[in-house]
Amino acid sequence: MVRWEPNARGRLGEAAFELFTERGFEQVTVAEIAERAGLTERTFFRYFADKREVLFAGADGFQEIFVSGVASAPDSAAPIEAVAGALYAAAAMFLAHEGGARRRAAIIAAHPDLRERELVKLATVASAVADALRRRGVTDPAASLTAEAGLAVFRIAFARWIAAPDGPDLARLIAESLDELKLVAAGK
Amino acid sequence: MVRWEPNARGRLGEAAFELFTERGFEQVTVAEIAERAGLTERTFFRYFADKREVLFAGADGFQEIFVSGVASAPDSAAPIEAVAGALYAAAAMFLAHEGGARRRAAIIAAHPDLRERELVKLATVASAVADALRRRGVTDPAASLTAEAGLAVFRIAFARWIAAPDGPDLARLIAESLDELKLVAAGK
Repeated sequence: MVRWEPNARGRLGEAAFELFTERGFEQVTVAEIAERAGLTERTFFRYFADKREVLFAGADGFQEIFVSGVASAPDSAAPIEAVAGALYAAAAMFLAHEGGARRRAAIIAAHPDLRERELVKLATVASAVADALRRRGVTDPAASLTAEAGLAVFRIAFARWIAAPDGPDLARLIAESLDELKLVAAGK
Repeated sequence: MVRWEPNARGRLGEAAFELFTERGFEQVTVAEIAERAGLTERTFFRYFADKREVLFAGADGFQEIFVSGVASAPDSAAPIEAVAGALYAAAAMFLAHEGGARRRAAIIAAHPDLRERELVKLATVASAVADALRRRGVTDPAASLTAEAGLAVFRIAFARWIAAPDGPDLARLIAESLDELKLVAAGK
């Protein structure tokens, strides 16, 4: 019989983040994460395939925020406006979980393999956003270009936000980067 | 004593491309590549760390084309114009080696790990292009945004070029994508 552990997933995630931050991702084992959370390894594997998965388990939800942000834009919105709405929705999510977002970013930044994994996940999000634009009737190459440019805006604004904890908030940095994109694309 | 083999690197590359195309990347061993080239495994490892390296050995040269394209733009060029010049230089290189470029793209497209590796390489190129823009005095976030948007233009134009062997040439697709970027960024 499986014993019910209150909030096992959250406790495992918190324990993993603590340990990755203290010792570095490579140096932490699943057994140590489970022990810190007061749970068994078996319980860990009920929630996560491996320790890396703890960092990327939220990726589907992240993608969903982008996709529904694009889908829910008014019909009159230009493609970049639909994507901008999605970026602001994602920003709101990150601002609501700022501490976790900053810890996660620091863990990922310290490890080349994790940075590559993050890059691949963001490329998958760009591809899903392009699909969402096509469902709004946007043709190619505009759909893929808008999605890729939008994700570039997000990555750059996010990196600036992480680099300056006391700087402007993420939504403002996204607005600035969108303005900047317009200028650079116009050859300014 | 090492026996000199005329054009060993080129013969190994050609043998690898043939075998990857015939059987799929996963199914080919280094021993088979060496045998097809009429060389030894030892000779293979003098040129390449592993079979994947055969596909990515040109990446440094590719990055160099972008970086010097940006550096050699006239001082008066806007950041996106400097990047556009680099994209056209890369297009000229691909058009000069069209057969190899198309075979390589087909091999990479068929294999998720190779697609991820390609994505990571292109992100490295974007980062080098941003550095080249900073050396021209472009500040951030304009430098990273222009580099990322430029590489997005390249990826999308390149994918269209690969998808349509009898379609417009790569330089023309890049020009179209740059125009499209301007339109989408402006909210058209």
